[in-house]
Amino acid sequence: MASQIRLPQIRKDVITGRWVIFSPARAKRPSDFKSKAPATASDPAYDHRRQCPFCSGNEHMCAPQIFRVPPDPGSDWKIRVIENLYPALDRNLKDADFGGGADVDVLRGFGFHDVVIETPDHSVHLSDLPPREVGDVILAYKKRIQQLLTFDSIKYVQVFKNHGASAGASLSHSHSQIIALPIVPSNVSARVKCLREHFSQTGKCCLCEVPLNELLIDESAHFVSFVPFAASSPFEIWIVPRDHSPHFHELDDDKAADLGGLLKLMLRKISVQLNDPPFNFMIQTSPVHTSGSELGSTHWYLQIVPLLTIAAGFEAATGCHINPVFPEEAAKVLREVHVQM
Amino acid sequence: MASQIRLPQIRKDVITGRWVIFSPARAKRPSDFKSKAPATASDPAYDHRRQCPFCSGNEHMCAPQIFRVPPDPGSDWKIRVIENLYPALDRNLKDADFGGGADVDVLRGFGFHDVVIETPDHSVHLSDLPPREVGDVILAYKKRIQQLLTFDSIKYVQVFKNHGASAGASLSHSHSQIIALPIVPSNVSARVKCLREHFSQTGKCCLCEVPLNELLIDESAHFVSFVPFAASSPFEIWIVPRDHSPHFHELDDDKAADLGGLLKLMLRKISVQLNDPPFNFMIQTSPVHTSGSELGSTHWYLQIVPLLTIAAGFEAATGCHINPVFPEEAAKVLREVHVQM
Repeated sequence: MASQIRLPQIRKDVITGRWVIFSPARAKRPSDFKSKAPATASDPAYDHRRQCPFCSGNEHMCAPQIFRVPPDPGSDWKIRVIENLYPALDRNLKDADFGGGADVDVLRGFGFHDVVIETPDHSVHLSDLPPREVGDVILAYKKRIQQLLTFDSIKYVQVFKNHGASAGASLSHSHSQIIALPIVPSNVSARVKCLREHFSQTGKCCLCEVPLNELLIDESAHFVSFVPFAASSPFEIWIVPRDHSPHFHELDDDKAADLGGLLKLMLRKISVQLNDPPFNFMIQTSPVHTSGSELGSTHWYLQIVPLLTIAAGFEAATGCHINPVFPEEAAKVLREVHVQM
Repeated sequence: MASQIRLPQIRKDVITGRWVIFSPARAKRPSDFKSKAPATASDPAYDHRRQCPFCSGNEHMCAPQIFRVPPDPGSDWKIRVIENLYPALDRNLKDADFGGGADVDVLRGFGFHDVVIETPDHSVHLSDLPPREVGDVILAYKKRIQQLLTFDSIKYVQVFKNHGASAGASLSHSHSQIIALPIVPSNVSARVKCLREHFSQTGKCCLCEVPLNELLIDESAHFVSFVPFAASSPFEIWIVPRDHSPHFHELDDDKAADLGGLLKLMLRKISVQLNDPPFNFMIQTSPVHTSGSELGSTHWYLQIVPLLTIAAGFEAATGCHINPVFPEEAAKVLREVHVQM
């Protein structure tokens, strides 16, 4: 029985206020869905030279390329930005008009889901690259975001990286992802609202004024890295630009290179201290259409979350995480761990 | 270097608006924290008769008992409600006074973290029990909640069950947990706000009026079970009382037995259809101090979430889940799967 492939859809849950993307392109038939044990870390039969679509030489196994770095096709590529072969959203729907008639809780699943291949070399991780080349990956995010902003109906762009199978990385070759959405997701709305409230109460941007003290891990010319006061996970790290800046894509080449160095240092520290843990990092930026007074209160940051605990029923129900490590203690450990750069 | 054990603390993140529980009783020393592969499903050397603290005969291995069912100590117990040996919160702090001076974003970590052992038999799962006995487990939740409500500073009580190691169950013996909090967590506040807004716009409770149609799975005398319109996970199920009811702990003995039957049926359906998947279930009730007009808009439900996809960086950053299975299709599969009761 062949089931018809449906177009993706975005629905809002009226009870929780959260948006959900329904993405049949990523599914088997519903009746084939079964629980299975997670894949083991590395299959000895896996030959990345033949099988890894992100390796140099296997470009034909990928969805279309958007751009590459350097652009000159006569030289080897260092970074490729491509379409995701199993996109959560459909870039060909043209727009995000309501797909459910008068029902404002359903949108057509218009949007972009891209992949940034951070290196042509299968055995190299992002944190193995020199600081300047980590900065080049950051500049590739920026360039792709600037392209995505030309679409009127894109409201938010999320950059994220999953490292390790249990962190959601389905391929081990170092890569990150960019999803451009026709909605502002609930966590982003909530963050913007909290920052706006802080600003209206104090006249100051919350992230410009964050008290660091014993939470500080390190700093560079343009950024500080610290464990947040109410970190939801052990050894969570935020990297925040010193100067007030609502949108990530405003950063210039110098700041990207500087951020590349501090990001590399933080990733090396968690790798050494925590035994190469699975992790996610996310660029927490402002909605596309942030303007006026909100530009004074919103401030982007990069959040790194090593996955050392399991979020279970309690966390799913309440949104309240249980963290066994106080931020001050995590920051002390991360300050003191020595890594080779 | 012995590090001093700190009391638990609850902090609010001013940027996301979310509360986090810091619970050092659950931690090793911060410097000992390492990533490790998840434990395999079953260790052949594990002898539950000697090692499982939840098995009949091993009661001395547990933290203190709160009550048992039946209460008569001359008969064998069927259900035990006990303190969690590694509680997230400290029941001995007496109150939840602010622990950070004038800082309203820090509370002492006062609260209760209890365990409900659902059966004395190691090999029996909740869904193996007869419907009436599943109802007795539900009545044990109710009885414990009623005790917890006598503490003035308790603002919310979360009942939840983790099944399977990857769903957060650290012991395989069938059990659920109850955490009583001195705060209303952010997901609960957001849910109450959405329900209140729906009520003020329509004059109706959102969950009394939920349009089921092709989302319905089954129904009983007092409850309906369905896949929610914007389910965040494949095959997510909600069980909702037909009659308007803000608080779970209002249910009577008849309704508990009826819910026991429908809950058992839903758990059997996901077990058969999805190959005994790890899952969480959560009782989504209203804050303790819900009163006045909010009683008209809030309506409790039981949410079952099989864990078939990995929530990764995108979901953590945005709160927006990607679900590969449309709710209508999941409901059809779950309606049609036949199970033995």
